[in-house]
Amino acid sequence: MDITSGHHSQHISRQFNKELDALKTHLMAMGGLVERQVQDATTALLEGNGHLAEEVCNKDHDVNAMQLQIDDECTQILARRQPAASDLRLVLAVTRAASDMERIGDEANKIARHALSLIDEGYQTNGFIEVRRISQQVRDMLRNALTAFARFDTSLALNVLHTDESVDSEYRSSMRALVTFMMEDARSIGPILNIMWVLRALERIGDHANNLAESVIYLVKGLDIRHTALDELDEKELDS
Amino acid sequence: MDITSGHHSQHISRQFNKELDALKTHLMAMGGLVERQVQDATTALLEGNGHLAEEVCNKDHDVNAMQLQIDDECTQILARRQPAASDLRLVLAVTRAASDMERIGDEANKIARHALSLIDEGYQTNGFIEVRRISQQVRDMLRNALTAFARFDTSLALNVLHTDESVDSEYRSSMRALVTFMMEDARSIGPILNIMWVLRALERIGDHANNLAESVIYLVKGLDIRHTALDELDEKELDS
Repeated sequence: MDITSGHHSQHISRQFNKELDALKTHLMAMGGLVERQVQDATTALLEGNGHLAEEVCNKDHDVNAMQLQIDDECTQILARRQPAASDLRLVLAVTRAASDMERIGDEANKIARHALSLIDEGYQTNGFIEVRRISQQVRDMLRNALTAFARFDTSLALNVLHTDESVDSEYRSSMRALVTFMMEDARSIGPILNIMWVLRALERIGDHANNLAESVIYLVKGLDIRHTALDELDEKELDS
Repeated sequence: MDITSGHHSQHISRQFNKELDALKTHLMAMGGLVERQVQDATTALLEGNGHLAEEVCNKDHDVNAMQLQIDDECTQILARRQPAASDLRLVLAVTRAASDMERIGDEANKIARHALSLIDEGYQTNGFIEVRRISQQVRDMLRNALTAFARFDTSLALNVLHTDESVDSEYRSSMRALVTFMMEDARSIGPILNIMWVLRALERIGDHANNLAESVIYLVKGLDIRHTALDELDEKELDS
């Protein structure tokens, strides 16, 4: 505690801590919502559930509203509390994370819209094993990234960064397989294009989960590891 | 000027203004670089110039490095200068803009990689009128968004927001045309998929130019208009 602090500044610092806690709580609520959106969008696709897909589209508005609210809280805190050191990093990491979560919400919305378009045209989608597998991996990444953020757990964040590499390679091989299917049967072009866009959306969700994990490392260690290849990282130093 | 300010605080405020000017200059340099990346990537594609496409891929690292440097400057300013009001908005708008510019760089890189893949397979790409037209529109949007940022020009920013709507509709009709081509000739599936990914990348660049325009309005007017439909905006109020 600062040597000049008395009763008044203790009160201010208690208030400030409350604000930071509220900010974390709101970010975690937003994370929970986008996690559910991704889950529901892929379930809607794989089970051909149009009602669920429409629900996802309708809830995109809530995701957007949460981002605006969180960014507004961050701006207020920066303007009135003038945070330094780890408090400043928390505020910056939260605003970055909210931006990634909003984009994850956008991608979930895209998946839901492709699900609706496949359902409208009467296609069976449960056979797309590629979607099932990649969506499982990506949802694991997202869950771990959110847990890492909630617990300030850099070790779990590093785990997410490693999973992203395997998702990317799985994505590339699935895309190649789908191109082959298309070439064999021109009638499948329409539905397979929808599945390709879904895979791309899932791959983007993985990228954003990756960004969330990088924000955790920034938050806890003060290191900005964006644009750094995994094999250039000193993982021993980053592991908590 | 603050009533307590003397020679010392005048000096500090001069320093601070210099830092803010440097920040703007660096952001504009980054904007110039990504603008060139988009231009070169589409030229490489349309002229089948593999050397130029490789240059774009190689320069992506510079774009990333600029984002890290700008974000670092922003963090330093927040920590040491504790800016308020319009200075705080400038810093926040710059960090948001640098993030959009970095993603524009990523999309340019994707376009260059698709160009390389088409060139490697010996395809003629200059016939893709869709790419030529959308890339022209998107580059206009990007140039205007950067100019709007440099001049704090909300009227030009609004112009960008309006162009994005027409790009999106052009994008959708081009995609439909490409699906038809694919269905007519299965041998064209490979190259047309590359062109579809390029169009998607261009459409994403348009979205990021849109975000840059929204940041200009936030910066100048203090209004966060993200996730607000154009017809809900009071444009008279926003026009400068």
